[in-house]
Amino acid sequence: MNECIFCKIIKGEIPAEKIYEDDEILAFLDIKPVNPGHTLVIPKKHYEKMEAAPDEVVADIFIGAKKLMKTIKEAMSADFVALSVVGIDVPHFHIHLIPRYFNDKMPVFWPKKEYRKGEKETVAEKIKIFL
Amino acid sequence: MNECIFCKIIKGEIPAEKIYEDDEILAFLDIKPVNPGHTLVIPKKHYEKMEAAPDEVVADIFIGAKKLMKTIKEAMSADFVALSVVGIDVPHFHIHLIPRYFNDKMPVFWPKKEYRKGEKETVAEKIKIFL
Repeated sequence: MNECIFCKIIKGEIPAEKIYEDDEILAFLDIKPVNPGHTLVIPKKHYEKMEAAPDEVVADIFIGAKKLMKTIKEAMSADFVALSVVGIDVPHFHIHLIPRYFNDKMPVFWPKKEYRKGEKETVAEKIKIFL
Repeated sequence: MNECIFCKIIKGEIPAEKIYEDDEILAFLDIKPVNPGHTLVIPKKHYEKMEAAPDEVVADIFIGAKKLMKTIKEAMSADFVALSVVGIDVPHFHIHLIPRYFNDKMPVFWPKKEYRKGEKETVAEKIKIFL
């Protein structure tokens, strides 16, 4: 992809603080971090979304992300490292690894709702139809 | 793990709205969804965290999650499906798949910060030492 900012980082046309690189994946610092050490892991081949990436690419990148989670937790003395794939930011499949701290003043997760009586069963059936 | 709530769901000792099941993984509805259709994907074997799971388990579960993302997006008419591993909620490795809508009144991501001059380079060096 000619215009893709992440492809340009891979090709070295845009600078980035690279953390890890092999034949399949590249990890580098997000320039606007949720917390310092916030890292993006991307496949070197361009796939717009995770859903578009072949199984073997998904396997490689998440195995890489697992290793980097440990590294980032240790290096940044984080309480935990959150992994997140958003799917609507930069259109080159990427994983966010975010060092988090119990006192970083952000909620751990999104607010949760309650299902109405019977709604859970209906939703499960609806999803299973599409499987 | 005797006391693990997810292990009890796998054994059928606690009911759950199951979406998908095979020899390695189970997917079921989160009972307190961020949005309806919010699904948890777990390995059948107990690993406290993603970091503790072997590479082949990580590969299997994220390949399964990728397929379910597409299904959930379609079934729930979601604008996108966010994937998230938090790492400090239930201590049995699990992936959240959350149907999201542009009008669901939640931010797409956590607030982002700026690095001070030179800080990015220092952080990258620090992480690479631990690799």
